[in-house]
Amino acid sequence: MSDERKYVEELSDVEDDFDRWYVEVVRRAELADESPVRGTRVVRPYGFALWENMQAELDRRIKETGVQNAYFPLFIPQSMLAREAEHVEGFAPEVAWVTRGGNKELEEPWAVRPTSEAIICPMYARWVQSYRDLPILINQWNSVVRWEERPRAFLRSLEFLWQEGHTAHATLEEAEERTRLMLEVYRDFVETELAVPVIPGRKTESEKFAGALRTYTIEAMMGGKKWALQSGTSHNLGDHFGRVFGIEFLDRNGERRYAFNTSWGLSFRMVGAVIMVHGDDRGLKLPPRVAPIQVVIVPIWRKESEREAVEAAVDRVRDALLPVARVFVDRRDDKTPGWKFNEWELKGVPVRLEIGPRDVANDQVTLVRRDTHEKQAISITDLAGRITEILDDIQANLFAAASRMLAENTVEIDSYDVLKERVAANAGFSRAYWCGSEECEDRVKAETKATIRCIPFDQPEAPGRCLVCGEAAQQQVIWARAY
Amino acid sequence: MSDERKYVEELSDVEDDFDRWYVEVVRRAELADESPVRGTRVVRPYGFALWENMQAELDRRIKETGVQNAYFPLFIPQSMLAREAEHVEGFAPEVAWVTRGGNKELEEPWAVRPTSEAIICPMYARWVQSYRDLPILINQWNSVVRWEERPRAFLRSLEFLWQEGHTAHATLEEAEERTRLMLEVYRDFVETELAVPVIPGRKTESEKFAGALRTYTIEAMMGGKKWALQSGTSHNLGDHFGRVFGIEFLDRNGERRYAFNTSWGLSFRMVGAVIMVHGDDRGLKLPPRVAPIQVVIVPIWRKESEREAVEAAVDRVRDALLPVARVFVDRRDDKTPGWKFNEWELKGVPVRLEIGPRDVANDQVTLVRRDTHEKQAISITDLAGRITEILDDIQANLFAAASRMLAENTVEIDSYDVLKERVAANAGFSRAYWCGSEECEDRVKAETKATIRCIPFDQPEAPGRCLVCGEAAQQQVIWARAY
Repeated sequence: MSDERKYVEELSDVEDDFDRWYVEVVRRAELADESPVRGTRVVRPYGFALWENMQAELDRRIKETGVQNAYFPLFIPQSMLAREAEHVEGFAPEVAWVTRGGNKELEEPWAVRPTSEAIICPMYARWVQSYRDLPILINQWNSVVRWEERPRAFLRSLEFLWQEGHTAHATLEEAEERTRLMLEVYRDFVETELAVPVIPGRKTESEKFAGALRTYTIEAMMGGKKWALQSGTSHNLGDHFGRVFGIEFLDRNGERRYAFNTSWGLSFRMVGAVIMVHGDDRGLKLPPRVAPIQVVIVPIWRKESEREAVEAAVDRVRDALLPVARVFVDRRDDKTPGWKFNEWELKGVPVRLEIGPRDVANDQVTLVRRDTHEKQAISITDLAGRITEILDDIQANLFAAASRMLAENTVEIDSYDVLKERVAANAGFSRAYWCGSEECEDRVKAETKATIRCIPFDQPEAPGRCLVCGEAAQQQVIWARAY
Repeated sequence: MSDERKYVEELSDVEDDFDRWYVEVVRRAELADESPVRGTRVVRPYGFALWENMQAELDRRIKETGVQNAYFPLFIPQSMLAREAEHVEGFAPEVAWVTRGGNKELEEPWAVRPTSEAIICPMYARWVQSYRDLPILINQWNSVVRWEERPRAFLRSLEFLWQEGHTAHATLEEAEERTRLMLEVYRDFVETELAVPVIPGRKTESEKFAGALRTYTIEAMMGGKKWALQSGTSHNLGDHFGRVFGIEFLDRNGERRYAFNTSWGLSFRMVGAVIMVHGDDRGLKLPPRVAPIQVVIVPIWRKESEREAVEAAVDRVRDALLPVARVFVDRRDDKTPGWKFNEWELKGVPVRLEIGPRDVANDQVTLVRRDTHEKQAISITDLAGRITEILDDIQANLFAAASRMLAENTVEIDSYDVLKERVAANAGFSRAYWCGSEECEDRVKAETKATIRCIPFDQPEAPGRCLVCGEAAQQQVIWARAY
């Protein structure tokens, strides 16, 4: 994009009009773009590099738990998708169907996978005969399709990128343990790498995955309207899929049993979370651990006579930093330094180094942090030794700020009227006792559009009274609007 | 698979019945499996790990040339696919069509991408206004769909995994340079990482990519029937797609021009190449650089009293090797050592370490190479220092053996009768002069099923006479049957 006016127009105010700000920042920071295919978005290199860094870290963590990657077909024959009744009921309305291929009408339509349980479980049925073949621990990185007419880059689109893990176990206990383990992998990944604090908990019956016994979730609070974003889910599928797809095995005692399954997924909507949790009026603010560029160097000179010395210092600094950070030197000669500063702030690069004639004279760089806007001179000799510490400090600072936002906007309440007010005012998460009835849950959803995001693991010791009906309640839940 | 008889049955003879051997080795080594979706295969963890190692190395090489990854939609509206006439003519018969989504009939069918030029070029048209926006250098890793009723794992399936690179340039020269650069990236990757020698060259007009100006290819010779496998192609698309999709820009002189494009792809059929080039009667022989497991350790003891000392030595060896190699310890207690040796040979692990009581007593391991079957005792202290050298030697040895096979089965000929005999006898590649006419090309194809694999870059200085018609011919070509 060579449009010089891009930074003359200001971004929409992040507090005033968050939805518009989001759309603008995604486009101007070149994370994603519109696409000629209705419901989809194109992920541009800068947005994809962010996702690739996330993938690498999450993939490493998943593999550390003994899981291996594999690849199953994109298509699922209709009859196969239909075998688990709740599952197909949940997904059928969102499915894209292939009905023609190789110039012929198909005898049976093929679903483009909305999720892969129905194609993976039949394979597990082939691979499992004895308890010795269990557990099976497999993950795949792919794209899935769920029909969507009103896309929003990364958050909601007809096709999205994710990983989906699928395991099979000899006992329900082991499946439960794996389900919780993967939720913990997600929590650690999202908090450590993305600097996004989350609330881990369980979904209610009406919010759980279609076909699951239990669904666990991590829920994050976005900036702006303080809505929730479901950030990763892990499902204990019990033996529902094992029975339906015939994943049978002989246990240690020679008895025939059905296997227990889990599945768990995290998608590129976490790119959206990073945008919405950390961004500000100047644009993105990327956590250093996943930022495609951690340090951008902007050479500055006015007179051609200054150029050589500045370029030599820039090269020296870049070479010193390359072993410890992802560095980019912005040498464009058709943009002013001020224009570049704005652009790299918009793109959320954690650290900017300015190197001009005065810096060269003092053997220093001018370092500017994206998170605090703090400016400091650092000697070139010290820089490589200090940059890791500075990047770590920015990462910690982003997590602290997001944790403050979550804490300040989560309130324990005991009145339904207060909940209504808080939801209407986009005031954040409301924590309240709930009796466990679907009736109360549905009523709040219908009247306020807020849903139960989760039943947090972290619960008070004493029971209480349901916010809605006033009946005895054993547990608190988190109410909020969600993306 | 807990089927003990698996290794009692021998693999089919690699020379006698190569096609059957391939199917068996893919299944028994657990690289891939049948799938309930006609035309597709499931890639199992061991096969996928091999592909992941290939991906990592190729991705690194592609990025080193300045290319970035991105992601474009899976679907292409019919009218968009149809815009480049030759392109749609080439691909339409193989397309899978989505005609229904979200419970509605679509107004216009969507193709599941058979390749992505037709969805990427319209985006480039949006992104390019000035010569300053060029070049665009983008790659994506994805799956594509081309209708196929008779699949063969990795080599030919309805859905396959690959990378497709797409670039846009200001001049035809620059596009040509990029086309050749990426072919060289492929050549280096395939020869260095996969130990598969290739012949680089140009495709004839009738064999080039649908819509391209010129297609370059690297062609490898497979074992068994000595057929060719097209191993990577790189296309100079000229300005065909630029004109059709309106990728227009203002050049340095303020004149409006169309951009020049390239595209280039390499797929997981290279997993098939690794199987077919290096495999033998015992199964796979994986090149160490991409082998999921480079060293397998098999503990051996008869009496329980021997166990502790053996296990301690195994742990010591594993810990010493982990920083320098991908190591796996096979501790299964329901399999004999002999069974394990067979299995790991079948799975092609380059190095096996046997550690038994006698080894422990001598502070050594027994090392067995998969390529030469050579057995040697190595002191535990020396092992970590020597293993890299041994793995490098195996890699070099595989490449040397494959190069010998290619050289010994490539013959320069000047008689069409000899070509017919050689093709009928599965005797390998035949190098011969060709006049350049499509008539001669078509005749050979119709009469022998051999095709021109490429016009090699490496050409003799003198002209000659066409093998088929006897007319003057400026260049030699490679004739062969191909997968």
